[in-house]
Amino acid sequence: MLTLYAATGSCSRASHIALEESGLPYEVRLVDFARAEQREPAYLAINPKGRVPALATDQGVLTESPSILAHIAALSPPGLLAPTDPFAFARMQSFNLYLATTVHVAHAHGRRAARWSDDAAAQASMAAKVTQNMRDGFALIEADLTGEWAMGDAYTVADPYLFTFAGWLESDGVDIAAFPRVQAHFERMKARPAVQRALAAKA
Amino acid sequence: MLTLYAATGSCSRASHIALEESGLPYEVRLVDFARAEQREPAYLAINPKGRVPALATDQGVLTESPSILAHIAALSPPGLLAPTDPFAFARMQSFNLYLATTVHVAHAHGRRAARWSDDAAAQASMAAKVTQNMRDGFALIEADLTGEWAMGDAYTVADPYLFTFAGWLESDGVDIAAFPRVQAHFERMKARPAVQRALAAKA
Repeated sequence: MLTLYAATGSCSRASHIALEESGLPYEVRLVDFARAEQREPAYLAINPKGRVPALATDQGVLTESPSILAHIAALSPPGLLAPTDPFAFARMQSFNLYLATTVHVAHAHGRRAARWSDDAAAQASMAAKVTQNMRDGFALIEADLTGEWAMGDAYTVADPYLFTFAGWLESDGVDIAAFPRVQAHFERMKARPAVQRALAAKA
Repeated sequence: MLTLYAATGSCSRASHIALEESGLPYEVRLVDFARAEQREPAYLAINPKGRVPALATDQGVLTESPSILAHIAALSPPGLLAPTDPFAFARMQSFNLYLATTVHVAHAHGRRAARWSDDAAAQASMAAKVTQNMRDGFALIEADLTGEWAMGDAYTVADPYLFTFAGWLESDGVDIAAFPRVQAHFERMKARPAVQRALAAKA
């Protein structure tokens, strides 16, 4: 059994959708950020970093979305959620890594600026640049999209990950309509039954 | 043939060491950050993100260290640079992802704070928190290290990646001696011939 530790509205949505697509048996445990449950000893024993997602497996706990997503794909039927060709797989990972290291980090400077400065004015200054940085990040993604899905013709775990961040654009002050391919991808994702089931679970 | 686009002193060092360990044929092309070569059209045609490392292969270009490192391992003899067990591989990726999304990002708030704010005072405020954030990141890593190498008994691409960031601690105001396991790992890495060859190439 797989247990996904998730928080509503967080990037754990991508892993939740991937699990729903995979057909693997899993359960979701919601970590309540509103009461800082991620800082409590019980959760820190699962993930000492105090973040979500974390995926508990029979062999141990995995953290960090691109690693969890790739592992869900590895546990699924070959080709269902990731390319079987090694280079195509690496290209998917490059795409997911860009989302993790640049797009997610850009977004985090809005509500989580306190990670990088203790000064309120500096935090406000970081928040003021989030719209521009998200727009710059998605301009590169828009240029990269050439097919129905993030990696082209085949659906992969890059799709729920992209979908998750595209869902944050509005609250970051970016109109998704400025990126027609991203917007079309977003609508295509919302039409998938697995995505609808994951969204309905509010995890 | 593989071509690694690298910059002296950057995180491309990890991929360079991994290539040197792999025995694969490769060449290194230095991108001159001092004259902003990473922003020139010739380099942006290789990596539109204007960053290093990038790994040009016969099938196309890969970006982002954890993706490049995993691909170098995939091209190498099985078990030489990454675990062959899927869960152990995913655990290595979780480790590398933490370095990429948290430790590298913490470090970047020193010299690259302009990415997240246009205000000089805010940038200085971010730089002032780098030491604390690097120390917090390495405290988690120190607690995680249990063997000779980052993943335990077997050397993997997580080792040159960890080595690269440990090499930044001093300039970030952190005494590596505060983390005895990290320090022992750092010394163990410096004794490896492949590491010495990569360092001598100054890439």
